[in-house]
Amino acid sequence: MTYSVAVVGLGAMGMGVALSCINAGLDTYGIDLDDKLLEKLSVSGAKGVGKNAGDFADKLNAVVLLVVNAKQVNQVLFGENGLAKLLKPGTAVMVSSTISAQDSKEISQKLTNLGLLMLDAPVSGGAAKAAIGEMTVMAAGSKESFAALQPVLDATASKVYNIGEEIGLGATVKIIHQLLAGVHIAAGAEAMALAAKAGIPLELMYDVVTHAAGNSWMFENRMKHVVEGDYSPLSMVDIFVKDLGLVNDTAKSLKFPLHLASTAYSMFTEASNAGYGKQDDSAVIKIFSGVELPKKQEK
Amino acid sequence: MTYSVAVVGLGAMGMGVALSCINAGLDTYGIDLDDKLLEKLSVSGAKGVGKNAGDFADKLNAVVLLVVNAKQVNQVLFGENGLAKLLKPGTAVMVSSTISAQDSKEISQKLTNLGLLMLDAPVSGGAAKAAIGEMTVMAAGSKESFAALQPVLDATASKVYNIGEEIGLGATVKIIHQLLAGVHIAAGAEAMALAAKAGIPLELMYDVVTHAAGNSWMFENRMKHVVEGDYSPLSMVDIFVKDLGLVNDTAKSLKFPLHLASTAYSMFTEASNAGYGKQDDSAVIKIFSGVELPKKQEK
Repeated sequence: MTYSVAVVGLGAMGMGVALSCINAGLDTYGIDLDDKLLEKLSVSGAKGVGKNAGDFADKLNAVVLLVVNAKQVNQVLFGENGLAKLLKPGTAVMVSSTISAQDSKEISQKLTNLGLLMLDAPVSGGAAKAAIGEMTVMAAGSKESFAALQPVLDATASKVYNIGEEIGLGATVKIIHQLLAGVHIAAGAEAMALAAKAGIPLELMYDVVTHAAGNSWMFENRMKHVVEGDYSPLSMVDIFVKDLGLVNDTAKSLKFPLHLASTAYSMFTEASNAGYGKQDDSAVIKIFSGVELPKKQEK
Repeated sequence: MTYSVAVVGLGAMGMGVALSCINAGLDTYGIDLDDKLLEKLSVSGAKGVGKNAGDFADKLNAVVLLVVNAKQVNQVLFGENGLAKLLKPGTAVMVSSTISAQDSKEISQKLTNLGLLMLDAPVSGGAAKAAIGEMTVMAAGSKESFAALQPVLDATASKVYNIGEEIGLGATVKIIHQLLAGVHIAAGAEAMALAAKAGIPLELMYDVVTHAAGNSWMFENRMKHVVEGDYSPLSMVDIFVKDLGLVNDTAKSLKFPLHLASTAYSMFTEASNAGYGKQDDSAVIKIFSGVELPKKQEK
């Protein structure tokens, strides 16, 4: 009665998912290219770790993909030594990377052709929620896919939305969610930079906003990094260049005019081109010149 | 040992402030041009109500101004039959309307010349928080002004920020707060309109966002109106045309580039010009054509 799952991509979210699966008693395998992450998961109780999920393919009931983008999803599943051909028929693949609805549909088609199940299942909640098994999952797929992944969903999510059977709906909901997340970070940066320019102490501005109607989840979480002057990446500027790019692609395909999200996309893109792409996404505030921001206190 | 306060402007916030003052046992007077609002406050226990605060001026320890803009503040205090000249020297005037730092300074100067105290004290929290005495107040002014208004602050606020002695700092913090509030409403509208265009049920989209990292106070509060198709005004589109206009004025005076707030200003202005100025501020979503939004259910 064991249930075996491989988590591919052990970044902030994937590591949390893998640890939550271990905590829930699932036989958990971890796949990444980074030895340190493999070592971390190994000592945390993984059944196995490695750079290629193919080594464990025949043991698996399920695979969770939390790599960066659609290109990586395709590489893992269908590239050289691709995993899809090695999985037992009926194995369930949960695609949780943020990708376009179009990519989601194409991947689903290829998996279906190989006799595999797919859940279009992006996630939200940040690394902290992932680590304690309390993510939000916005999922689309067949009843069979949901059922096959139930142990993984139970282990990792406090809230699972069943958006429908049509693959791509999960991706679309996640992309619209990212529109809000990205705009909120960029708006937080604009507000805090203006406060700095006006001579308002940023700690005070942060305190006021987080106790008032101007607050957002992202303001509270990310502008704390600005107040502390700490841009160690939890989620990077370049992730929002990608995700707001997907928002723009989605809007274009639906012929929908984006006012704010296209502006936020430009702000993150400018930050990336200025050299801050690998910093925490709150570093988008560094696009504002002539503003003195808090420096990190040495401990 | 009675303490008497007049609240001028009995809109959503002012009515809440007046009721909270009554609940705290202060002798409370209510001033507005609308007979219905005066009647409501009268039966709720006001010591007196009227269209002109001058009638009660000699009894007052404090005045709270919650009219719409700086023009109205000036009219009430310094216009024909202006209140300022009728107040006893030392009376404390709490200016809680959202106005520019420059206006705040000019009003303070005129009050000081008449021997009156002023607290530059914008508020946040919405009508619901005002009604239960739990507003957030961001205040600047002398120690004397804070002390003179302590009974009012105790009655109406759960959180009072003392930003400093310099009049105008309260106004600036509020304006930066409004940048976030306005952008968050406009971003919520953009996201929900895109969801409608993509065929995502708005109730589901609302549920996902409010359980995930894309949430904001304004999204949760205002997009509920969109889901319910109810644009009865709690706070109007035109208020954000005004407040984001003040954000733009402030940025211009500080030579600060606004990316998102200037876009949000255009969105609210477009909504107002399209005829939605007096509707709930969530009606900014109506600027998106070719999108079917939920209709209000008749009860």
